[in-house]
Amino acid sequence: MKLDGSHLDDLALGAVFLATGGGGDPYVSKLLTSLAFKKYGPVTLIDVQDLDDDAHIVTIGGVGAPTVGLELLPSHNEAFEALVAYEKHTSKKVDALVSFEIGGGNSLVPILAALAKGIPVIDGDGMGRALPEAQMMTYAICGACPTPAIALDYEGNVTSFTTQDTHTYERHIRGLTQASGGMMLTVEHPMTGAFLKHAIIPGTMSFSVKLGALLRENRGSADLLLAPLKALFKESVYGECRLLYTGKVTDKQNSIVGGFDVGEVSITSFDEQQAQMNISIKNEYLVAKLGGKVVASVPDLIVIVEYETSNPINAERLRYGQRVAVFAIGCPAFYRSSKALDVVSPACFGFDLDYVPLADI
Amino acid sequence: MKLDGSHLDDLALGAVFLATGGGGDPYVSKLLTSLAFKKYGPVTLIDVQDLDDDAHIVTIGGVGAPTVGLELLPSHNEAFEALVAYEKHTSKKVDALVSFEIGGGNSLVPILAALAKGIPVIDGDGMGRALPEAQMMTYAICGACPTPAIALDYEGNVTSFTTQDTHTYERHIRGLTQASGGMMLTVEHPMTGAFLKHAIIPGTMSFSVKLGALLRENRGSADLLLAPLKALFKESVYGECRLLYTGKVTDKQNSIVGGFDVGEVSITSFDEQQAQMNISIKNEYLVAKLGGKVVASVPDLIVIVEYETSNPINAERLRYGQRVAVFAIGCPAFYRSSKALDVVSPACFGFDLDYVPLADI
Repeated sequence: MKLDGSHLDDLALGAVFLATGGGGDPYVSKLLTSLAFKKYGPVTLIDVQDLDDDAHIVTIGGVGAPTVGLELLPSHNEAFEALVAYEKHTSKKVDALVSFEIGGGNSLVPILAALAKGIPVIDGDGMGRALPEAQMMTYAICGACPTPAIALDYEGNVTSFTTQDTHTYERHIRGLTQASGGMMLTVEHPMTGAFLKHAIIPGTMSFSVKLGALLRENRGSADLLLAPLKALFKESVYGECRLLYTGKVTDKQNSIVGGFDVGEVSITSFDEQQAQMNISIKNEYLVAKLGGKVVASVPDLIVIVEYETSNPINAERLRYGQRVAVFAIGCPAFYRSSKALDVVSPACFGFDLDYVPLADI
Repeated sequence: MKLDGSHLDDLALGAVFLATGGGGDPYVSKLLTSLAFKKYGPVTLIDVQDLDDDAHIVTIGGVGAPTVGLELLPSHNEAFEALVAYEKHTSKKVDALVSFEIGGGNSLVPILAALAKGIPVIDGDGMGRALPEAQMMTYAICGACPTPAIALDYEGNVTSFTTQDTHTYERHIRGLTQASGGMMLTVEHPMTGAFLKHAIIPGTMSFSVKLGALLRENRGSADLLLAPLKALFKESVYGECRLLYTGKVTDKQNSIVGGFDVGEVSITSFDEQQAQMNISIKNEYLVAKLGGKVVASVPDLIVIVEYETSNPINAERLRYGQRVAVFAIGCPAFYRSSKALDVVSPACFGFDLDYVPLADI
């Protein structure tokens, strides 16, 4: 499949939905990608199963607090420069790129770099959504070494890492990101084609285009969106989809703590008769409680959309007074495995609760 | 000149005096260096003027909060491993090593690496004392590029940097150090012999040995130490030396803030009749006030010794109740230049005061 400018709006719209509040606002990345499509033409989106077993794949994306991304803006070529720095540092040619996470702006970063470099992007990603830390990626969970890795800050400084363990690597890049203004690009987790075939959430790039098209075609009240959305997710790696709540944002708190956006949002039903919904944020929407009872939690997806338009809203753009609907989507089966839950269960984010799959709530 | 185990106690003792409270306690480094002298024999200490103009020199040392260094201990070979990682990363052979700072444990780190590598150490350093940040080194002030640079953490992870500007590099290594437990080794600021001849405080290694010998030979009350100390400093790059205060430590506060030790010490005279002395700390003793009036400030040296033995005391070992004497020593002329004061004046540490040289107070 070829991706071009005609797919861009849908891809980005679907990606914000799948970002579960995080992943970074794709507005600027979308402008950059639109320019790149005009300059370079379409990018080839390849099925992971079509990769040569010995192909050299890396994942590329932005690291930092999404709130910072609203003010610390990329220019047009950081993604390409980071990829060039990786190839120079390792003396290895990269055959294809894969996304950290389909959610938000990080769905577009590999496309930007791949267009300038003339290589394909793989249809899939390492999270099936957005998640805040590197060790939460399928690549790391399946045992890929995070390094050799390259970080490029927005001043053009290149840092390389040899750390063998992704938890430690995550600490290191987070520390460096904080010291670099709060946002960086990294090229990391080099993998072979053979490895990646078993370590990816497949098909999420093309799924995001379909999801974006559906959101565009069904623009309007979130209540009316539910039926087509359910049908689409039922046929995907996600499965379950439900509408959790509709109401007004009556409180929103956010701080940048340790390089992450950390916060809480309260939503009150339109008729003010229902119990309040509270959603905890660490870059992404992680736990949704209705009157204190958990109704959805990470790794399942919690998505907030504007009630009237069904436009998904990133956490950093959520504001007091917005009228919203909250959806919950089941996570891909990969994330319900015990090796994945070891790094993405609610306890990994400091919540004192066990993960209960959405389908069982 | 050859340095061997017989010089070690004096070198380390002198280095703690010149550390002005910071630079890291040299106790563990001294044990390691003693072992290394037994294994490899003496190290050659060369005059900077004897360097070939095209010699490749790097500076090596520990980065972090000295307090962390009391608990996060090196094993025997980090300094050597960091140097090997630098040579591997840059594909360049290092001809000689030079110290960040003569103060504290960082006076010994280049010796440790040089012994294992069989190369000389240069008689001199980049501060003439200890100072908390990379841009405060003579090498950086004279315009050396901080990179290519290597950081090695105590787990053996290697990070490399290309940052062109030392202020930015300082932010980056500080962020990474915090993410690596609070203490790392770096190899950085590559320089030619020709460059270094104009960018070093010369002779401080051999001076530290002399100073240590003097402290050892005059062990006893700080009052009696003053005359021989004045005589030694008068003939050195430092010049001025005075005894500021004697008394008991009546308060000591310290926190690790942004990867630095930040604190304040209060000293009350033995007869409790004089105004109190207060000394501000950021890794090092930076500003001494007597009854609120500045009597010495960075870049001049403020040194606290145990009153009865004249043993210099690192800030992280300073405790309530200790009986101490406070000396002030003039800084080398290099640090009174405007390009140096741009990065080391009291204002650079957040103090709202102009630097007045010790000789003018």
